[in-house]
Amino acid sequence: MSVQAGDNNSGGIDFIRTGPGTLAGRYLRMFWQPVYVSSELKTGYAVPIRVMGEDFTLYRGESGAAYVVDFRCAHRGTQLSVGWVEQDCIRCFYHGWKYDGTGQCIEQPAESESFVKKIKIRSCPMQEYLGLIFAYFGEGDAPEFPRYPELEEEGEIDAGTYIRYCNYFNTLENGIDQAHVPFTHAKSNFTKFGLNWDIPKISAEETDYGIAMYGTRKNGIARVNHYLMPNILYIKGSPESSQEGWREAFAWRVPVDDLSHRSFNIVLAHVSGEAAERLRERQRQRDEMIAKLPSANEMAVRALAGQISVHDIRERPDLVNIQDHVAQQGQGAIPDRRAERLGRSDVAIILLRQIWLRELSALAEGRTMKQWRRPNKLVATSGV
Amino acid sequence: MSVQAGDNNSGGIDFIRTGPGTLAGRYLRMFWQPVYVSSELKTGYAVPIRVMGEDFTLYRGESGAAYVVDFRCAHRGTQLSVGWVEQDCIRCFYHGWKYDGTGQCIEQPAESESFVKKIKIRSCPMQEYLGLIFAYFGEGDAPEFPRYPELEEEGEIDAGTYIRYCNYFNTLENGIDQAHVPFTHAKSNFTKFGLNWDIPKISAEETDYGIAMYGTRKNGIARVNHYLMPNILYIKGSPESSQEGWREAFAWRVPVDDLSHRSFNIVLAHVSGEAAERLRERQRQRDEMIAKLPSANEMAVRALAGQISVHDIRERPDLVNIQDHVAQQGQGAIPDRRAERLGRSDVAIILLRQIWLRELSALAEGRTMKQWRRPNKLVATSGV
Amino acid sequence: MSVQAGDNNSGGIDFIRTGPGTLAGRYLRMFWQPVYVSSELKTGYAVPIRVMGEDFTLYRGESGAAYVVDFRCAHRGTQLSVGWVEQDCIRCFYHGWKYDGTGQCIEQPAESESFVKKIKIRSCPMQEYLGLIFAYFGEGDAPEFPRYPELEEEGEIDAGTYIRYCNYFNTLENGIDQAHVPFTHAKSNFTKFGLNWDIPKISAEETDYGIAMYGTRKNGIARVNHYLMPNILYIKGSPESSQEGWREAFAWRVPVDDLSHRSFNIVLAHVSGEAAERLRERQRQRDEMIAKLPSANEMAVRALAGQISVHDIRERPDLVNIQDHVAQQGQGAIPDRRAERLGRSDVAIILLRQIWLRELSALAEGRTMKQWRRPNKLVATSGV
Repeated sequence: MSVQAGDNNSGGIDFIRTGPGTLAGRYLRMFWQPVYVSSELKTGYAVPIRVMGEDFTLYRGESGAAYVVDFRCAHRGTQLSVGWVEQDCIRCFYHGWKYDGTGQCIEQPAESESFVKKIKIRSCPMQEYLGLIFAYFGEGDAPEFPRYPELEEEGEIDAGTYIRYCNYFNTLENGIDQAHVPFTHAKSNFTKFGLNWDIPKISAEETDYGIAMYGTRKNGIARVNHYLMPNILYIKGSPESSQEGWREAFAWRVPVDDLSHRSFNIVLAHVSGEAAERLRERQRQRDEMIAKLPSANEMAVRALAGQISVHDIRERPDLVNIQDHVAQQGQGAIPDRRAERLGRSDVAIILLRQIWLRELSALAEGRTMKQWRRPNKLVATSGV
Repeated sequence: MSVQAGDNNSGGIDFIRTGPGTLAGRYLRMFWQPVYVSSELKTGYAVPIRVMGEDFTLYRGESGAAYVVDFRCAHRGTQLSVGWVEQDCIRCFYHGWKYDGTGQCIEQPAESESFVKKIKIRSCPMQEYLGLIFAYFGEGDAPEFPRYPELEEEGEIDAGTYIRYCNYFNTLENGIDQAHVPFTHAKSNFTKFGLNWDIPKISAEETDYGIAMYGTRKNGIARVNHYLMPNILYIKGSPESSQEGWREAFAWRVPVDDLSHRSFNIVLAHVSGEAAERLRERQRQRDEMIAKLPSANEMAVRALAGQISVHDIRERPDLVNIQDHVAQQGQGAIPDRRAERLGRSDVAIILLRQIWLRELSALAEGRTMKQWRRPNKLVATSGV
Repeated sequence: MSVQAGDNNSGGIDFIRTGPGTLAGRYLRMFWQPVYVSSELKTGYAVPIRVMGEDFTLYRGESGAAYVVDFRCAHRGTQLSVGWVEQDCIRCFYHGWKYDGTGQCIEQPAESESFVKKIKIRSCPMQEYLGLIFAYFGEGDAPEFPRYPELEEEGEIDAGTYIRYCNYFNTLENGIDQAHVPFTHAKSNFTKFGLNWDIPKISAEETDYGIAMYGTRKNGIARVNHYLMPNILYIKGSPESSQEGWREAFAWRVPVDDLSHRSFNIVLAHVSGEAAERLRERQRQRDEMIAKLPSANEMAVRALAGQISVHDIRERPDLVNIQDHVAQQGQGAIPDRRAERLGRSDVAIILLRQIWLRELSALAEGRTMKQWRRPNKLVATSGV
């Protein structure tokens, strides 16, 4: 691996814009992407979703299966998410055209001579896995759905999501950046677990699946994080309570549009039985407490506007999230990367950009792209 | 009449944009347009109004007469609506220039050598009729003010307005579309009166005044609606209470700008004496109830954002209005009509577009346009 | 002096836009500008500020000194105002780069081979004076900091600020316009002091420091105001209470961006001892009362939208400010000056524009600009 500190020239290749037809958008669309938290989509309900600048309709049929179809009815363009879910079909709110989960129109109630066979709207392959709904937005057949054995062990799964009002690449880069932890999260519950006690020496290497990142502490012990191409972070996450062990934490960063993205998170806590019961109770209490507070995003916006100081925010369960909001939105929704001055501690970020530059260049020029493969089991470590 | 299903090619003629100088804007400005509800403009008060992308000042003089004049003072451009109404004149808030209802400047208090004769701002002919204030925004003399004998019979008049955040043409098309009623309004008080019991067979024909539309039910009885060019709907409206009969309901759809419009509605209920008293009391209660609820537009916005389901909204007096909001804003503020797939049930919409295409083409090319004439009395029917 | 009524041709010279590189922006940047109220910047805190379309970080070090530095960290562009103030330095929230008050980077904690010497961000000269923080944003060395002896006499200083959502030039012109007072402020506490009793005859002359303006009342007595180039108004301000005398009132109008600006105000009341105590107590009560009311800007926005009438707003301590908001925002954020019809009462405004036109033309063409000089003591008078 050769990494030049300060080299972040992307040679005219744009990682930022991911709308239809963009280079980065075409690349991200080659992979399965999470789009919703399973538990938030009730049977018989439909919702609008926006992914990489495109709008879709997501609904859960009466069988319990979820479907991703076009945003609008083919008839007169009404938003399908306001329609009726009937069995595993969706019916338009305006004139009742009905589509099955493949997007095939199967009813035009007001037409005496129906032409349903001519009408098919877009639908996307989808999978539900570990509490998230994934879809494939690319061309051609979907690739095999990837599994994550690190998350399939015994324990408690917690799936969630949040939106952040900056480009997804800000958060991609933050995720592989261990050097920010002792600063951005200086005042956080990371202190209890030693994650922010000293400034690690950073190194990173390209692997078959993406990047392995190392943050070596003064005592010589390294925290090992993994970045799975194109947009997944895997770290050993700190417990919420000292009664639990460290967790497996995966995060997908999925563009909503160029100015915002969603993180989809799956965390596996290695607990069972009564300990699992206590964990669920703590999470329930945490969610209740957070629901009563101003949102993490609202706090970040106030801090960036100078209305409050981020340092004065009292301990709350999502404080680390607020701190990341502030740091990442604080770079601007689309930062000017040409103004940066990178150092040796930024080697992981430099490597990430080199890989994206290489892969997007290959895509642009029709050359072979790297086929990412993951080993049977990845091991992330806390370093403490 | 020849209507080709699916023909919605507008041949480069734009129905959507109505700002000054646009083709559709020039056409709409040839007709009197309602701009305000009479009862909402108090004597001695001025308000700003926006009509087809242009701003004006509307005020009611101390004589009780209303006036439409330019938005800004000719002196230094201050918005006149914040000025003082004095007798039937308006005085600017900034330096006191005073204008009469014709827009003629009649005072410049700070000028020792007044040049009022050189200063005249725009004013528009106006008429107050059945609870609405109408104005004429076109060039040259205003045409004769049209009367609506259907609304002048004995009974109770109710005049009102609402704003919808999509192009006026969405709502024009919705108004002549009987096929949406059994879907969009499936769950509504229409059920009580049979308006949404079956899917009517649609037909339409051009008339001297616009379009006559027929929705024929399974029992062979047709509901007859009328569309009066360029932007008026006349239907037989359902009672709010079973103690009343059907009503005469007129609606004008007037662009605020290209992304929003106002409906101005006049409804005549055929009641008098004590029944009229009861109706007014019910309307007072209805208005009170609605004032306490989130607005129809707010409900529609939430439904379209997926925060609530339109199907879960409880019965409320303006539920039909919310449903129309959802269907019409759900097409997008300016829909892409090229993506539509029209059928036989859309013949009225197709005819409407053909007429607009023909008339706007004639206007663009300086050819004679059709002179719309209405019969002494139009009859709309409920079909039930 | 030759002033042609109605001449407001600016010959292609733009007074309005003040972003970096614009002509008016280059001109304004040649002068010290106030940016913050001293008492609102606590020791150890940083805030983001926007001045003439540029963002900066303002912080007060532990020594009590304030500093203006670049908006973003040179490392990865994070907004510095969310960082830590340490002694008189600021440390970035993301990776801890630390800068001193000159903008020199002095720490890169995660870098084993620090390159701090190569890193220096922008900093601006600043001065704190009479309760305001001033900075110099121009090129080269800052000019000598100007003092205002009229404000340095014995008495009580009150420094404050407000934002107005229109171009700064609207307010510049309003400040030198005595003719608006009997109209815009017809219903205000000016009545108590006679400021709005009659319409003054306006004259104005260019001076060594800017413009002297005279508003001569019917009794022959003139109110004398001063305009100090490029953006300062000095007037004799009315007392808040009849127990006090007239005040010295200075106001700087500083663009935030092209669509909004801040007024920074310093008022000297000629009181001392117990009278000063009573004044502070009244001001404390005034601030408390205002804090409970909808903001002046909110009231102005409602009045301009026609939701309330400015004439119906009840007496409140900032009513004059609300009236000015309405008059100036009511001209539009960037008014179309070509549509104006100026008269003899606008001679001060015409003169102001002529001076700006002349000075900006000289700047554009590299010619010598007038060097503004103020006398040792200016005298503003109430005229009553």
